[in-house]
Amino acid sequence: MEIGFLGLGIMGKAISVNLLRHGFKVTVWNRTLSKCGELVELGASVEETPAAVVKKCQYTIAMLSDPSAALSVVFDKGGVLEQISSGKGYIDMSTVDADTASKISEAILAKGGQFLEAPVSGSKKPAEDGQLVILAAGNEALYKEVIPAFNVIGKKSFYLGQVGNGAKMKLVVNMIMGSMMNAFSEGLVLADRSGLEPQVLLDVLDLGGIANPMFKLKGPTMIGRSYPPAFPLKHQQKDMRLALALGDENAVSMPIAAAANEAFKKARSMGLGDLDFSAVHETLEALKPPH
Amino acid sequence: MEIGFLGLGIMGKAISVNLLRHGFKVTVWNRTLSKCGELVELGASVEETPAAVVKKCQYTIAMLSDPSAALSVVFDKGGVLEQISSGKGYIDMSTVDADTASKISEAILAKGGQFLEAPVSGSKKPAEDGQLVILAAGNEALYKEVIPAFNVIGKKSFYLGQVGNGAKMKLVVNMIMGSMMNAFSEGLVLADRSGLEPQVLLDVLDLGGIANPMFKLKGPTMIGRSYPPAFPLKHQQKDMRLALALGDENAVSMPIAAAANEAFKKARSMGLGDLDFSAVHETLEALKPPH
Amino acid sequence: MEIGFLGLGIMGKAISVNLLRHGFKVTVWNRTLSKCGELVELGASVEETPAAVVKKCQYTIAMLSDPSAALSVVFDKGGVLEQISSGKGYIDMSTVDADTASKISEAILAKGGQFLEAPVSGSKKPAEDGQLVILAAGNEALYKEVIPAFNVIGKKSFYLGQVGNGAKMKLVVNMIMGSMMNAFSEGLVLADRSGLEPQVLLDVLDLGGIANPMFKLKGPTMIGRSYPPAFPLKHQQKDMRLALALGDENAVSMPIAAAANEAFKKARSMGLGDLDFSAVHETLEALKPPH
Amino acid sequence: MEIGFLGLGIMGKAISVNLLRHGFKVTVWNRTLSKCGELVELGASVEETPAAVVKKCQYTIAMLSDPSAALSVVFDKGGVLEQISSGKGYIDMSTVDADTASKISEAILAKGGQFLEAPVSGSKKPAEDGQLVILAAGNEALYKEVIPAFNVIGKKSFYLGQVGNGAKMKLVVNMIMGSMMNAFSEGLVLADRSGLEPQVLLDVLDLGGIANPMFKLKGPTMIGRSYPPAFPLKHQQKDMRLALALGDENAVSMPIAAAANEAFKKARSMGLGDLDFSAVHETLEALKPPH
Repeated sequence: MEIGFLGLGIMGKAISVNLLRHGFKVTVWNRTLSKCGELVELGASVEETPAAVVKKCQYTIAMLSDPSAALSVVFDKGGVLEQISSGKGYIDMSTVDADTASKISEAILAKGGQFLEAPVSGSKKPAEDGQLVILAAGNEALYKEVIPAFNVIGKKSFYLGQVGNGAKMKLVVNMIMGSMMNAFSEGLVLADRSGLEPQVLLDVLDLGGIANPMFKLKGPTMIGRSYPPAFPLKHQQKDMRLALALGDENAVSMPIAAAANEAFKKARSMGLGDLDFSAVHETLEALKPPH
Repeated sequence: MEIGFLGLGIMGKAISVNLLRHGFKVTVWNRTLSKCGELVELGASVEETPAAVVKKCQYTIAMLSDPSAALSVVFDKGGVLEQISSGKGYIDMSTVDADTASKISEAILAKGGQFLEAPVSGSKKPAEDGQLVILAAGNEALYKEVIPAFNVIGKKSFYLGQVGNGAKMKLVVNMIMGSMMNAFSEGLVLADRSGLEPQVLLDVLDLGGIANPMFKLKGPTMIGRSYPPAFPLKHQQKDMRLALALGDENAVSMPIAAAANEAFKKARSMGLGDLDFSAVHETLEALKPPH
Repeated sequence: MEIGFLGLGIMGKAISVNLLRHGFKVTVWNRTLSKCGELVELGASVEETPAAVVKKCQYTIAMLSDPSAALSVVFDKGGVLEQISSGKGYIDMSTVDADTASKISEAILAKGGQFLEAPVSGSKKPAEDGQLVILAAGNEALYKEVIPAFNVIGKKSFYLGQVGNGAKMKLVVNMIMGSMMNAFSEGLVLADRSGLEPQVLLDVLDLGGIANPMFKLKGPTMIGRSYPPAFPLKHQQKDMRLALALGDENAVSMPIAAAANEAFKKARSMGLGDLDFSAVHETLEALKPPH
Repeated sequence: MEIGFLGLGIMGKAISVNLLRHGFKVTVWNRTLSKCGELVELGASVEETPAAVVKKCQYTIAMLSDPSAALSVVFDKGGVLEQISSGKGYIDMSTVDADTASKISEAILAKGGQFLEAPVSGSKKPAEDGQLVILAAGNEALYKEVIPAFNVIGKKSFYLGQVGNGAKMKLVVNMIMGSMMNAFSEGLVLADRSGLEPQVLLDVLDLGGIANPMFKLKGPTMIGRSYPPAFPLKHQQKDMRLALALGDENAVSMPIAAAANEAFKKARSMGLGDLDFSAVHETLEALKPPH
């Protein structure tokens, strides 16, 4: 199976390395071509435009940083649209909103191509280990054809129906995550101010019914008020906003998500947007009276 | 080690059975004496008053249903105070507020006795399996003396310092849990109204960084809008209120917990207080327009 | 001063009648031409297209129902753009978002025309009485030229600077109003459930530092749980959403507005979107246990 | 009509001066007796204990600073209880919670006396001008007897039924006020960050349907970020907390009040508790990025 791969950022590189290691032939493209070198050493071919990749490969996967990059790779000169055609599949794993996914889908379909949106849950480490969760939606036949690749990329893939559903599912998950992060932060601060040891709270939480990897991973750094960006706060806040907008469309009242969104906005107003989303903790900690 | 045990409700019975099975000599008392029968069959002795239990045993554990029962067992005629004295330890595992714990502590100490509050995290099943988490606070020497019993009762025990800290730690944990439950419920409803399958959301959540036993356990029943009471909603709301009051004392702003508390109050106003706390889901679901 | 007037809905008709009564020559257009009859009886001229009105008059005022109507009157065949030119002014009093105002502004300016956005605060009655408040922004020279007309239409007009500021000011006012309405509703319900007479609360409020016309006007109907639409709830909720989006752009955290927005969304989910915005009261009242 | 008056703080002094000016005979007592001097110059008599005042006068009014002062004046040695008896009326105008009012009421009634709680709405200026609003509850006969005095003290008095209702009504009003203050503050900050002039927002608000004395009075100082204490923030937050507790008792969900309460708590955590309650504005302003 020959696979094209567009975009070699942190996630894209990890995924394409994984595919190569599992014996897939991979042809890569990246806006900054020099980033392709490491992949070539592992056996990848390189093409100079997305169009050239699509021309060469039956299936092309994209993993771009944001909606504008995702659109540009498709619609610009030398883009996917120039070569996509009947019998070729395009799988966009970038995290984009439902509108962007739909716009790309329509353009690909208009050229006779097949389209799948397939955003993932998980960050760098799961990407390297092939442990992502794949939220695919769009052409079901294409989904079935690329399952061998998905099996390498992720520990599990879901087929969610029409294009847009992948983006929506990801928003729902991230919304719950953002509210949970705020609940967790409030608990850490309440413990601390009430004379309890926050580290002991972590230990107690980890033994109970709400134990989860996020608390375990982020708790110690939050206690230390350190927030190296794994998932930037401004992106988390954007996802909260988009989830609330989705709720607005469907008349779903979500008071907890709304309160959490305002806390993330406050963190942004404090200049913390580029830190990890756990930095929302500072909206409470920063108000601590001096010792 | 001879242990007295006061209170044979769901939790108390499970714990004392566990102690008997692990070779402890146990002398039980229960307001309704007939409930002691099953314990006697397993080898327990019975006394007719809390005072008689305390007189007989060096260590007495209580597991009562609420603060008023916890106070009554200590202060009423035939109560713990009549026999507690230097060299005797009293361990209250009931879930009470910090004020009640302090009141009991002061009375025990005034009689020369030793006191430990030791509320637990976990419900019936973990109690039967000796898998509770014990949040002890008070007399540290007494804590160390009863560790053999705690090792049978729970999978882990914590010593948290002065009396009141056990109650506070439990409130913090339950506050985080209550906010999480609301965040989860909002996500389930948002998924459903946005055309996604809530069951698939559960599957996706269970594979990611916020996977936790509560989502896994409660999700399917919430989707089915069934809420058999494991932890009654009115108790969860009371804990949210007490946690917010603790935050008020310490000037900790907790907007997510406050929003979650209002949702639980709304559920109470809908007559759902005796259902499981996951019934807060109905505050969103019940507004669903008819199909 | 000859003034063109586009749009004879409730507000447009009241304003144009007012202008005629104060001696302005007015040329009207309405999508349904039959609605022009009453104006003609009062001395107005009629044209068959917006373009024809603009051709005839130096100043043309528009008062349309929503952004799409506002755009259509400008950009469609027979629209304002066909005749707007240097020396002609176009004043849009419709309530639209800042983006729509900017789009119209740019098109008018590109043709050499002058543009003013001028949304108003106030509904039917103030419009009839010339008691509106006008929030103008855009070309300052044009603003000064049309002050004689604004003096008739409103009790006060403000010049707010660049195009978009009129829309923004209106959003801010409506956001405060929406939050206040929720605060008021909570107070009415709390009074009632606590055994106080809601009507007495109205009397007390009306004598104090937060007395305001809205409480006085809406209180009695809210107590009677009647919500004849003066300002539809769905429009209020849309304004809350847009105000929150404006806050998002500028990193302003607004937890009260966010909570109020969720209450309005809940009201929408209960099917109350077409009632008056005071119907948000039902989100609390409807949960009242049966008597 | 001879009236006793206990407590000559800012409010008490203004009220008793008012009574003297309108021809009432007034006998005063104050914990710091030296404060009575000014009243004596205006014709008041002085007694050395609350008991002595009650002994001398048929009606005694108290205006104390807080619940503990209100209790102390009644229950301490030399207190009201020592002389209250059948045929004597005691009117407590202090702002206290319903529990305190009930405790005082019961003690007075047990001695055969008559009791009225009568907290007021309004601060120093209205007190001086006899423009307070009186929220009376308790003995209706006593209420009718003291109306001549109430007519001098306030512009309006209400009889609200059983003891406790005065305190509750005041809580409801203050809760609405606290939420409104937050809504107002959010609007001021949103205007400012969106490029609008906050002073113009004040002008626009003052012409519309939500115009109210509080916005007019507090707006300019809030823009100037100055908060001289008229109503201390910590007292406003306490009232929000008590109102929420009242809602909790009655299962009334109040998400806006809850969000406002958290903002006031945040202000407290920033050390602003002794400033005016409008200082909640700083919870938003203080996060402003440096210019």
